[in-house]
Amino acid sequence: MSDTQTVPGRIMAAEMAEQPAVLQRILDEGAPKIFEIAGQIAAREPRFVLLTARGTSDNAALYAKYLIEILLGKPAGLTSMSTTTAYGAKPDLTDVLVITVSQSGGSPDLVASTKAAREAGAITLAVTNNAGSPLAEVSEFHIDVLAGPEKALPATKTYTAELLALYLLIEGLRGGDGSAAKALPELATGILARQDEVKALAERYRFAQRLVITSRGYGYPTAREAALKLMETTYIPASPFSGADLLHGPLAMVDNVSPVIAIVPDGKGGEALQPVLDRLRGRGADLVVVGQQAQVESASAGFALPAGVPEEVQPILEILPLQLLAYEVTIARGQDPDAPRALAKVTETH
Amino acid sequence: MSDTQTVPGRIMAAEMAEQPAVLQRILDEGAPKIFEIAGQIAAREPRFVLLTARGTSDNAALYAKYLIEILLGKPAGLTSMSTTTAYGAKPDLTDVLVITVSQSGGSPDLVASTKAAREAGAITLAVTNNAGSPLAEVSEFHIDVLAGPEKALPATKTYTAELLALYLLIEGLRGGDGSAAKALPELATGILARQDEVKALAERYRFAQRLVITSRGYGYPTAREAALKLMETTYIPASPFSGADLLHGPLAMVDNVSPVIAIVPDGKGGEALQPVLDRLRGRGADLVVVGQQAQVESASAGFALPAGVPEEVQPILEILPLQLLAYEVTIARGQDPDAPRALAKVTETH
Repeated sequence: MSDTQTVPGRIMAAEMAEQPAVLQRILDEGAPKIFEIAGQIAAREPRFVLLTARGTSDNAALYAKYLIEILLGKPAGLTSMSTTTAYGAKPDLTDVLVITVSQSGGSPDLVASTKAAREAGAITLAVTNNAGSPLAEVSEFHIDVLAGPEKALPATKTYTAELLALYLLIEGLRGGDGSAAKALPELATGILARQDEVKALAERYRFAQRLVITSRGYGYPTAREAALKLMETTYIPASPFSGADLLHGPLAMVDNVSPVIAIVPDGKGGEALQPVLDRLRGRGADLVVVGQQAQVESASAGFALPAGVPEEVQPILEILPLQLLAYEVTIARGQDPDAPRALAKVTETH
Repeated sequence: MSDTQTVPGRIMAAEMAEQPAVLQRILDEGAPKIFEIAGQIAAREPRFVLLTARGTSDNAALYAKYLIEILLGKPAGLTSMSTTTAYGAKPDLTDVLVITVSQSGGSPDLVASTKAAREAGAITLAVTNNAGSPLAEVSEFHIDVLAGPEKALPATKTYTAELLALYLLIEGLRGGDGSAAKALPELATGILARQDEVKALAERYRFAQRLVITSRGYGYPTAREAALKLMETTYIPASPFSGADLLHGPLAMVDNVSPVIAIVPDGKGGEALQPVLDRLRGRGADLVVVGQQAQVESASAGFALPAGVPEEVQPILEILPLQLLAYEVTIARGQDPDAPRALAKVTETH
């Protein structure tokens, strides 16, 4: 076994491979606790939800924002953390549920901002991978995403774990049963088994100078997380845009040397994205689609996702081929996905 | 005069130059109406604020979000528009002020989303440059930003006009007098007169493959708007990050071939950004600072902003040298800032 220690990306590869087991663990062991917490929070009847997070967890928070607005019918916002930590803003947070999402639960600004929210009257909930963290400590409620220790610098299993935990939470808040998530572990296993397909796709980006990543609706957080993953591992600048925003300016940047990756949800988000895909095809863009087989076939290339998955849980699967892509492009460029330069696992921002 | 018709960027240049006059017009003619509307809205005691916009106006909306959280002490969020327009979400918006910001007031999704918000019980306010627009029509309240027709595709004067109108609105909502904005037209004139300095700075980016733009607090919307402006005119991929988020991953992308532009607010946002600037300098990044003279002197190069301006209105000035920079880099690359490929002035997203 000792020679595997020197294989670049072995930690990230192992953690990506754990994802089906982590998802199953959340469904089996985590769900009852999540539904219990959801019940207690629902009884307090929050009217507005604020989500606080950074980096990968911020993309998980954005996914939760879509769930909250669409499934729960409550207005929601992402916190601009510096308003509290740098400017000392003290908004009245009565009737507000503040959800702080963090892999480590250790970043001082998240702890400070959550503490301030609780003092300002908010119901506070931490969603972390560390039940003993300072963030879990200062929050009224805590959900453990049960992903086990994550050692690679690029977060993978904690991202999908956060997504599933947040999905179950919102299901619990609206009185749903979370059954749409049941098949995810098996489907994730099927996707992760197709690494060779992604490896072939990765050749396309080995020499890319830049990437544009787009989606709409539930798929937009996936676009953002894919861009972040690709940037922090491959160092290729990857700009994520909602399809609608892409048409408001940045489309000028797309041409036949700026490849585009589109995440096409199977559902309303994908339908809303079609005019954007038409514009991109019309401009001769190199378009790689992560979505249903028919969508992949009308693009330059792509990765087909399983059919029949409810749109609201598709993000938990969509990101998997894109994590693999970040990994494979990084390997192809001769870099080590486990150790992007300049990064520390627990980022201490204040 | 006829030969000027063929000068690339002449429309954008003229519109940038109008900004001091537009700001003065808002202070003289617009402010009384804005304060009147603010008074009517304040009397209805909204508890939460949602902001809806796309593209450049979305960056103006983000600026307003900071003002609302810091100065007004109310929780706020940016709308994920597709939750309404694609998924038909119907959140209960009682006690919610929904502010929709749009230069043209013509994009169908903004109109639909604002209409839906009004039906869902929200107090709706449109901030546009077109009092006769469909958006102004469907909103309960309307603020005209009085920028006059904008013809260049990259929005410049409507952006600073939206910022000032939103600042005065929030001042009105909290019972302030907006006096911090009084000196802005004259200071803007001073900055715009220094185009030669920016032209020298532009040489730095003529051959750049990518850019990272960072700031914190009130300066973060400026970072986003500068990135958008540079992308849509020069086509250089420009990634905006809050300083804190930059440390959570994308820092790996920064090295001595990825130039960084930092907007350093004179105040708490700038203080919070210092550790990020230290990390960037430690990595040998090419760092260009837009901020106070002392900050510029500790960077590779920069553009010094006038001292003594209250932090909350600095964004109205900060963006000016960055608009000029987008213009000058575009000219240096032999492109026409007035007509980025593939863009239409009124973007019809649905």
